[in-house]
Amino acid sequence: MTTGRVPIDGAAATAAFNRAMAGQQEAFGDFFLARLLGFDITYDGESCAVKFAVHDFMFNPQGTLHGGMLTTALDVSMGHLLNRLAGPGATLEFKIQFFAAVRGGFVTCRAEMLRRGRSICFLQSTARNEAGESVALATSTWSLIRPAPKPDPA
Amino acid sequence: MTTGRVPIDGAAATAAFNRAMAGQQEAFGDFFLARLLGFDITYDGESCAVKFAVHDFMFNPQGTLHGGMLTTALDVSMGHLLNRLAGPGATLEFKIQFFAAVRGGFVTCRAEMLRRGRSICFLQSTARNEAGESVALATSTWSLIRPAPKPDPA
Amino acid sequence: MTTGRVPIDGAAATAAFNRAMAGQQEAFGDFFLARLLGFDITYDGESCAVKFAVHDFMFNPQGTLHGGMLTTALDVSMGHLLNRLAGPGATLEFKIQFFAAVRGGFVTCRAEMLRRGRSICFLQSTARNEAGESVALATSTWSLIRPAPKPDPA
Amino acid sequence: MTTGRVPIDGAAATAAFNRAMAGQQEAFGDFFLARLLGFDITYDGESCAVKFAVHDFMFNPQGTLHGGMLTTALDVSMGHLLNRLAGPGATLEFKIQFFAAVRGGFVTCRAEMLRRGRSICFLQSTARNEAGESVALATSTWSLIRPAPKPDPA
Repeated sequence: MTTGRVPIDGAAATAAFNRAMAGQQEAFGDFFLARLLGFDITYDGESCAVKFAVHDFMFNPQGTLHGGMLTTALDVSMGHLLNRLAGPGATLEFKIQFFAAVRGGFVTCRAEMLRRGRSICFLQSTARNEAGESVALATSTWSLIRPAPKPDPA
Repeated sequence: MTTGRVPIDGAAATAAFNRAMAGQQEAFGDFFLARLLGFDITYDGESCAVKFAVHDFMFNPQGTLHGGMLTTALDVSMGHLLNRLAGPGATLEFKIQFFAAVRGGFVTCRAEMLRRGRSICFLQSTARNEAGESVALATSTWSLIRPAPKPDPA
Repeated sequence: MTTGRVPIDGAAATAAFNRAMAGQQEAFGDFFLARLLGFDITYDGESCAVKFAVHDFMFNPQGTLHGGMLTTALDVSMGHLLNRLAGPGATLEFKIQFFAAVRGGFVTCRAEMLRRGRSICFLQSTARNEAGESVALATSTWSLIRPAPKPDPA
Repeated sequence: MTTGRVPIDGAAATAAFNRAMAGQQEAFGDFFLARLLGFDITYDGESCAVKFAVHDFMFNPQGTLHGGMLTTALDVSMGHLLNRLAGPGATLEFKIQFFAAVRGGFVTCRAEMLRRGRSICFLQSTARNEAGESVALATSTWSLIRPAPKPDPA
């Protein structure tokens, strides 16, 4: 049993949790954290977008969207794009720059491939708020789980 | 009402959610996400540690601890240390390098101040698995909400 | 007196050094390192470009353009753009991703402002080889030496 | 022929250039840029140190050691350590945080391996001024040119 005694929107948090628990799989596009955070994951040509509604259960103690949650969305957008274009990968590193705090509305993270190598890929993703302003930029480096075959020396 | 129909440990997820909802405040050391992820936040001299048990509801679609969740723990360790030593700050940027996948057990993120300036501070945090092996390293740059006063030009 | 006994193009290195020494100032747009590396620094609206010819005296021991030299060009493009748009700043941090090795020809680094704050600015710069292919991406965070005045609370 | 008409220490710059030109090889430990910048490269167990004297020909237009020169030293310390411990590598990315400006004296960059993988290695390097204060921190990710053989599946 859950209650709403906390100083956050308990109904929104409970709805998110129930949505996460109601899922039937743990797969690209549909897994527990993506459902909990309400990620809407879509593809458009060579890019992947993750859109979600910001709720106060995702906040830091200072009352804004937690950097870790924004990072999760940025990471999901890049990891899903990589999986779509080149197969699953392991994140070697990422860096996020935060331009502005987010307190509500929708956030959309749009990922693009910067460079696709045989075994190493570089991606970036930009997070925008509902007004379309850029609020964060991520760049990342990935190692493909299954590198492309080396070209024939023919 | 929540159910356990998902292919994750539903009991662990439900316990985590109920713990998060049972909280009475949103403050440093005790806020929704920290309770949900089971963060045990402690201080030891000039460092801050965030320890948590890894559950499969924190996983990515590939079945390991999601980089965004590990980032959240690393970020909390740095933000809490900064708040303790110099007051609240805004994250300008962080970078995380991932050395090894985590599939269970406990993870401990230990933050240290690299350089404390009047308005800008630099921190790092290392995440270790239960065997004590380093699994990730974060470095970050912060802007203090309330910069220290400028020294008297006396 | 210098000689050409080293296994690099001694004439090119000597010409570069003489150009550097012949300068009359150490200022934005014209300073020793910029002359040594042959940087052509230009502005186009809201961007700054640094173009230079790659010589083997700029190489690493593996025979390609040294990452530190490419970083210098990227950094100069961002620092000069910042100075032009908002005044001089101190680099808090930068990150560079390297997409491809460079062995000759021209490289052009083009910087853009990502976000201009009152005291903190975020910039990026992309390096392209002569074929126009992106060979490196830099993102950076700067602190302005003279922050803009706070807006009147009026 | 070079002259000293520039507002930098022309004798120091000329000595550096002549030292660079007098070299006989382009190899790890001894190459043009390392000689030009006066890098003293040494190894101590599992670490590599690059020490150099700061001269004003290495300055930015604001009169302090150029970030690109400090980056070059940090990069050399990491690349040389990698080469010593695991063979030559390609830099995938590095990030540098700058804690304090450097105006003279000696700087020492000391690199350590953070994680050595079969094909990917992570390193860091700390730059200290003559007083022993940390002035910059670099973290980096490398891809080995010749990955270690995969373990026998035996």
